[in-house]
Amino acid sequence: MSNSHTIGIDLGGTDIKFGVVSPQGKILFKGVLSAQVDLGRDAILANLNRAVERSLAFARKKNITITGIGVGSPGSVNLRTGRIEGSCPNLPQMLGVNLKKRLSPRFDYPVFVDNDANVMALAESRFGAAKGFKNVLCLTLGTGIGGGMILDGELFHGSNFAGAEFGHMTINHKGRRCNCGGIGCLEMYASAPAMVKETKRLLQRNRRSVIHKLIQGDLDRLTTKVIFQAEKKKDSLASDVINQACAYLGAGIASAVNLINPQVVVIGGGVSQGGLGFIRRIEEQVKKRAFPSATKKLRVVKAKLGNDAGFIGAAILCSSAVG
Amino acid sequence: MSNSHTIGIDLGGTDIKFGVVSPQGKILFKGVLSAQVDLGRDAILANLNRAVERSLAFARKKNITITGIGVGSPGSVNLRTGRIEGSCPNLPQMLGVNLKKRLSPRFDYPVFVDNDANVMALAESRFGAAKGFKNVLCLTLGTGIGGGMILDGELFHGSNFAGAEFGHMTINHKGRRCNCGGIGCLEMYASAPAMVKETKRLLQRNRRSVIHKLIQGDLDRLTTKVIFQAEKKKDSLASDVINQACAYLGAGIASAVNLINPQVVVIGGGVSQGGLGFIRRIEEQVKKRAFPSATKKLRVVKAKLGNDAGFIGAAILCSSAVG
Repeated sequence: MSNSHTIGIDLGGTDIKFGVVSPQGKILFKGVLSAQVDLGRDAILANLNRAVERSLAFARKKNITITGIGVGSPGSVNLRTGRIEGSCPNLPQMLGVNLKKRLSPRFDYPVFVDNDANVMALAESRFGAAKGFKNVLCLTLGTGIGGGMILDGELFHGSNFAGAEFGHMTINHKGRRCNCGGIGCLEMYASAPAMVKETKRLLQRNRRSVIHKLIQGDLDRLTTKVIFQAEKKKDSLASDVINQACAYLGAGIASAVNLINPQVVVIGGGVSQGGLGFIRRIEEQVKKRAFPSATKKLRVVKAKLGNDAGFIGAAILCSSAVG
Repeated sequence: MSNSHTIGIDLGGTDIKFGVVSPQGKILFKGVLSAQVDLGRDAILANLNRAVERSLAFARKKNITITGIGVGSPGSVNLRTGRIEGSCPNLPQMLGVNLKKRLSPRFDYPVFVDNDANVMALAESRFGAAKGFKNVLCLTLGTGIGGGMILDGELFHGSNFAGAEFGHMTINHKGRRCNCGGIGCLEMYASAPAMVKETKRLLQRNRRSVIHKLIQGDLDRLTTKVIFQAEKKKDSLASDVINQACAYLGAGIASAVNLINPQVVVIGGGVSQGGLGFIRRIEEQVKKRAFPSATKKLRVVKAKLGNDAGFIGAAILCSSAVG
């Protein structure tokens, strides 16, 4: 079966990324479709089908044998049934959908479904920044803060597929109320929206920040990308916000490190592209806070597979065959 | 080998508890010795030997076949070598000691060593409050807050035996400086000394609390036991301290639950004996804070094996044979 290729689909809040992947993690074909989430559940499912069809068309043309379809989806996914069971705030219209059931009848291949951050962790541990490591904490910094864990060489799911919700670790027991119902969750402090919100607050008291110019006075243009740009221009307000985010992330990661003692922490997602030693600064915070015995050999590194991690990880699901 | 019994030793900061345990978890013999920690490392080792000898004497008398010796010790323990490698603040004189090497030559049995909270988790999951569960978070509330985890049916150690340091999860990223070097660790808020300290602080401003009478005005007599006694007498100061501790513990446990999604959280150690719905109040806090998908089926329960959990778990080490 070593030349049997698989299709990986990464369902996101905006796009569907997909591709045909070899058992060695080589991308033979890839594509992107709008998920058209505004059009509702059926439109999303139609687009998922379209992504599979495009991949199959490529495989037929190139005479490549496909042996399975893997999907990474937001939310906690029941591996056995393929149903999206919960924790799906960014794509609520998919809650309760059984992706395995909805995709399998149309295609003559086994379908495997798992959480999007989990499949990213799988991809990074098999072919990316955590290659060769058996205990890996992988997190994605973006609109939310997602997590996936490889423990003792296996993707970890917890007792009812709700594990690795890294963004919802408590960093302040009396802190901000989170959308999940919790209190002081990391996501409320260090996600992209949290960084943007804090920057807006500080901008009101600081007329000299270069950010005003970068966004041409329009606060709606403010993104984490702009904040990192401003730091490159030695803007101290931007530096403060980023350093603060590193401290928050350091506290959350240290907490997880003391619990699961990984060899490597992989940081991916849009915000991780910030540059200027963003990852190194997070690492410093982690090493300052976590148990020395747990950080002695620990590495904090940037994800390697970028936007491809999701569909590569989804494609691998078929061969790591949990479902 | 089903009738092969093993010896379990639980090395604590005060006592050495030990016993002969059947493969079914039945205690055939048990004893306690002072660890004599003040006399230093050699005295502790001599007492460990004494505990083994007493157990062997019992086995000989009863014609019981012993097949191994297990030891639960504070600190992070290298399972392969048997050396105590770190995180050993309550028994620092044992840091660097190789228990396997020091015990094996004297006795003709294989010796297995693991962390004390880990072996407690093992015992509770095999024969106690978490029997039959595959994903278990076990914590001990006492001078420190220890942790052990069973993940996917196996005792979890992390990449260099430093995992499950539950007491050192962050609950306040800008909080109290911890002995471990970290900031805002749960142990600084909800351990027995933290509860006693907070009570002393509040007593200075409250002359009416029944605690003054219970300790006969001598603050050195204040223990968590007294605080729980006072709550039984409807003392509101005591209630405040205990409710606060439940909230701290709830935040820490919720954080861990969102990460490892266990089926059951087992709470043991001296403070867990508090009564008056202490465990139930912690559970309420956890369910209020953690992800609904992670708490839907979660149970928070009191440990069942009490003071025997340590040596029972140590005895099982021989049969779950990691080393």
